[in-house]
Amino acid sequence: MASTLQRTVGTILYPRFELLDVFGPLEAYGMLPDRFKIVTVAEQPGPVASNQGPKTLAEYSFDDAPQLDILLVPGGLGTREELDNPRLLSFLKARTAKAEYATSVCTGSALYARAGLLDGKRATSNKMVFGWVAEQGPAVKWVKEARWVEDGKMITSSGVSAGIDMTLALIAKLEGMPRAEQAAVWMEYEWHRDANWDPFAKIHKLV
Amino acid sequence: MASTLQRTVGTILYPRFELLDVFGPLEAYGMLPDRFKIVTVAEQPGPVASNQGPKTLAEYSFDDAPQLDILLVPGGLGTREELDNPRLLSFLKARTAKAEYATSVCTGSALYARAGLLDGKRATSNKMVFGWVAEQGPAVKWVKEARWVEDGKMITSSGVSAGIDMTLALIAKLEGMPRAEQAAVWMEYEWHRDANWDPFAKIHKLV
Repeated sequence: MASTLQRTVGTILYPRFELLDVFGPLEAYGMLPDRFKIVTVAEQPGPVASNQGPKTLAEYSFDDAPQLDILLVPGGLGTREELDNPRLLSFLKARTAKAEYATSVCTGSALYARAGLLDGKRATSNKMVFGWVAEQGPAVKWVKEARWVEDGKMITSSGVSAGIDMTLALIAKLEGMPRAEQAAVWMEYEWHRDANWDPFAKIHKLV
Repeated sequence: MASTLQRTVGTILYPRFELLDVFGPLEAYGMLPDRFKIVTVAEQPGPVASNQGPKTLAEYSFDDAPQLDILLVPGGLGTREELDNPRLLSFLKARTAKAEYATSVCTGSALYARAGLLDGKRATSNKMVFGWVAEQGPAVKWVKEARWVEDGKMITSSGVSAGIDMTLALIAKLEGMPRAEQAAVWMEYEWHRDANWDPFAKIHKLV
């Protein structure tokens, strides 16, 4: 099963994470189990309650997590509290340095921003709370209208469901368009392939 | 918080359930926490492993679950084994009788079919394994081309991401279109509102 090309996707969980921010991308990665191994990581191992209630088990703590090739950082109401969690921010710094890609969904980009990982880089976030997220990283080149933004190893996506589109685009980049298209068909998902597609920036009067 | 109008959504978990089948709908219900209370139920309480790996905690067992107003039955590779699980099938029968709506995503409709709950009714399922699902309920009026199908209290949807569209439609029905539209915008999700929209039936040569 585990070919030398299989990448480990490190899903970072924290209290009150947003469900679809995590499980949309994991559904897409999960369509190619020969290529992506999914692991869950939190400050402490064990159950982590989502913003919506259901709890997901973190297999690893920050101290014993294996090498993570792709980081997945969700948003959610819990983001606000984690902005002042030095353990989480230093874990993101250390692991982004060693990762091939560091991705986020929704307000997850506020955590990368606070950790300084987006300074001087282009990035996006949830459109409903965009102004607040932007305040967390004054040196970031925030892009208001985008489904997702890639700058070097940092890939940040817009709110909630945007994580699915970002992940399919990353799968296309790493494993080829045919496998990404197949994953989208298996998910019966109408994939937005254009990173610039973003009606929600207009709805929230950001542009 | 808990108004008399709040409905309880009973999420049925079983080993190897499909992640997005569960968490797409729960993300949508979770946008209206004053109207929908989410609970997780499995044969035994405790961690239940998804098809993709990550484990979700079931709060209740079949024996101690509270009244469930809306049932949510996911599909996934684990469906096949549950078709021969009399405890699950009798739980679905008993709780569908008491529910206002019984919904499914993907191959979840095979479980309702095997429990006899779809006999004589119109229903749909995942388009990649449609023939196999249809065999589980010869007396069901299977609809090959549909994003979701409503027949009385039974609402069945197509593969994986279709559960999100079905759930937003049910929210519109129960709480009004403005709240459903707001939920979709908060999710930054381009909702397919037409139950007949289904390009995947054609891709899998069902029509």
